[in-house]
Amino acid sequence: MGKLGLPVAENLLAGGFSLLVYNRTAGKAAGLVAKGAKESKSSAETVASGGMVVSIVSDDRAVLDVASDDFCEALGSGIHVSMSTVSPVTSRTLAERHARFGGQFVAAPVFGRPEAAAAKKLWICTSGAAASKAAAKPVFDAIGQGVFDFGEEVGAANVVKLAGNFLLTAAIEAMAEASAMAEKNGVPRADLLNMLSSTIFNCPIYVNYGKGIINAQFEPAGFSIPLILKDMHLVQKTAADARAPMPILNLLIDRYLTMLAKGLDRYDAVGLALGAAEDAGLRW
Amino acid sequence: MGKLGLPVAENLLAGGFSLLVYNRTAGKAAGLVAKGAKESKSSAETVASGGMVVSIVSDDRAVLDVASDDFCEALGSGIHVSMSTVSPVTSRTLAERHARFGGQFVAAPVFGRPEAAAAKKLWICTSGAAASKAAAKPVFDAIGQGVFDFGEEVGAANVVKLAGNFLLTAAIEAMAEASAMAEKNGVPRADLLNMLSSTIFNCPIYVNYGKGIINAQFEPAGFSIPLILKDMHLVQKTAADARAPMPILNLLIDRYLTMLAKGLDRYDAVGLALGAAEDAGLRW
Repeated sequence: MGKLGLPVAENLLAGGFSLLVYNRTAGKAAGLVAKGAKESKSSAETVASGGMVVSIVSDDRAVLDVASDDFCEALGSGIHVSMSTVSPVTSRTLAERHARFGGQFVAAPVFGRPEAAAAKKLWICTSGAAASKAAAKPVFDAIGQGVFDFGEEVGAANVVKLAGNFLLTAAIEAMAEASAMAEKNGVPRADLLNMLSSTIFNCPIYVNYGKGIINAQFEPAGFSIPLILKDMHLVQKTAADARAPMPILNLLIDRYLTMLAKGLDRYDAVGLALGAAEDAGLRW
Repeated sequence: MGKLGLPVAENLLAGGFSLLVYNRTAGKAAGLVAKGAKESKSSAETVASGGMVVSIVSDDRAVLDVASDDFCEALGSGIHVSMSTVSPVTSRTLAERHARFGGQFVAAPVFGRPEAAAAKKLWICTSGAAASKAAAKPVFDAIGQGVFDFGEEVGAANVVKLAGNFLLTAAIEAMAEASAMAEKNGVPRADLLNMLSSTIFNCPIYVNYGKGIINAQFEPAGFSIPLILKDMHLVQKTAADARAPMPILNLLIDRYLTMLAKGLDRYDAVGLALGAAEDAGLRW
């Protein structure tokens, strides 16, 4: 029932699914219960043997906790659709855990901020067994605008999601550096970013995060600094394990660490832009 | 009559302008002459007193050479529209030079590869005196799909063009790092980049350069490594003069230097992607 889980659950309800919901912190499901969902008291009680369960939690540890042996046993031959942004290693671990109980695991991380989730505009990346993905299609149709499949290797979709989040945050840093350079040369960042994001960079990431930089709108966070830093550390580990150096990534991680060092945990990922501005002596 | 100058001149001719053309290296204007242009033997002979002249050359030194005192004197009260990617300092120098002879200078750098120039799809950034920009509008209409104005300070459009080229090459490097990380984890870069460039990064830069990375198509160069490195050095100087640190930029410059060190001068800017791939032990 987090920033993404809640709108996803609401769209599943609206799509006619009967929903049993569970949140690790109690009390967040009241709105859903009022709309017809039922609430359970533990993750294991949430799943029905042979049924389907969708999880969206904040990190690898959380999904490994939620999908405990009890949970996997209760799900039995059912399907666990995991939408969290986690490492491919975690997906493989969970797939094996479910397999021990005859169950199936589908990695289905999503792209889109909470507003996009509410508008059923998520992009869904999938990997796992073909039959399980086919079975989960009605779920995907109820919450997103499109599915991209990356095959049977269950960690593949997680790799894509991590790569996408890296590109997103690299774009923010690049816009920030360009904006600082422009402003120090007398060109307002709004003029620069509005031009570029309506022409050669006319896509959601540059339009939306560009707007955030222009308006210096760093709160409330749709995607907070600690969460994006968590993702960047996952990219770093996934890249390092595979022996792929990523110099821009390392630079971004330092930027995010500085945000936390300054106590800006509550800021949105777009707050990254402050680093380049402050380093140039600008106050946004 | 370079990679951009030639299609721009062809579109001016097609737009009904009477054209006198000059290229520093002789013999490149034959095709234009066949279509009705006249060729002159020096830059100063190309301009008519009180007329309009458009320049597109490869770097700051070239435009400073072309727009000599003789050239400015011959142009007199006319207008020089400068489309090259040069530093804002060079635009200010040229504006002062023309002013000494009663002339006007408009900075009008363009975004778009040679194919876009041929299709009249350039995006034009302008700065300079309002009356001069208004007088040049028919020229812009004949070659581009839109004009973005950045005011009267003559270097402003150059700042925007430099910032845009930086963003472009930062996007290539980010896609390269993400692709190397993905491929080392078993996800083909085509699957990754096709997904992202059709969703949250659905804009010309990611679509076109993403295609270049997928196909490892580094030749023929529409925008060669030495030219983009020249631009990056201009960004670096412009940023440094204004005291704006740009850490991603410095990393990109090292990447381009490595391309030249390996003798890959003839590669397109998209060849930058080779750096991250080779560092990860991949062969594209």
